[in-house]
Amino acid sequence: MKNKQKGSNAERELLFALFEKGFAVSRVAGSGSSQLPTPDVLGFKNGKAVAIECKTKKGEYLNIRREQIEELILWEKLSGLNAYIAWRIGKGNWYFVGLCGLKNTKKAYSIKRAEILEIGLNFQEFVKQFS
Amino acid sequence: MKNKQKGSNAERELLFALFEKGFAVSRVAGSGSSQLPTPDVLGFKNGKAVAIECKTKKGEYLNIRREQIEELILWEKLSGLNAYIAWRIGKGNWYFVGLCGLKNTKKAYSIKRAEILEIGLNFQEFVKQFS
Repeated sequence: MKNKQKGSNAERELLFALFEKGFAVSRVAGSGSSQLPTPDVLGFKNGKAVAIECKTKKGEYLNIRREQIEELILWEKLSGLNAYIAWRIGKGNWYFVGLCGLKNTKKAYSIKRAEILEIGLNFQEFVKQFS
Repeated sequence: MKNKQKGSNAERELLFALFEKGFAVSRVAGSGSSQLPTPDVLGFKNGKAVAIECKTKKGEYLNIRREQIEELILWEKLSGLNAYIAWRIGKGNWYFVGLCGLKNTKKAYSIKRAEILEIGLNFQEFVKQFS
């Protein structure tokens, strides 16, 4: 399966998981190829909105292109809302971290698997913020 | 130009107009064909979010399929946020009305052109709500 297809399937998995928890959810059209700064997924509950960038990387490190994080920082600034990185560590096992939880290296923004397991929110904890 | 293409172009016109006014904006993927209730366009500013369904109908009446409005009502209920119908009356000339501004007829939800010009918000008034 191609990476892009894999990514879309993972996004749908997260969308439906959030929908089951009572969120209104949307996949963003042209995410990653738009002229406007935009995340992959948007979730809404109890008058609160959140932007989520989904990642499915295997292995010990997640590196995210500098431009992608800068777009999300601009999105946060414009919207006044929070953006999260959601890293899928095994099937249905998502961990969430805010942009300030990423390490700004020379080439990219990154986080270790061990770090997100330690400082990130698991799905239940993430969802609880909106109840 | 096909209706679908026309609709997408109009959505983009509205997206860029909102972006110019300092909104973070997203087009929703699979709007109208998704299994989940979802609007066409999402806008975010100053911590507030709004859902917008874009219409480009010519003529004196706008009729919207019952199922589409019921999806938006569900979206409002889940998200706790407001959804608007944006009707493009001439190039760059959008009028906005909340769902309760529509008349619930037997077959559809509808509004007259004369009504939206009277009770609807024009673009400037719509944007002002988020400042």
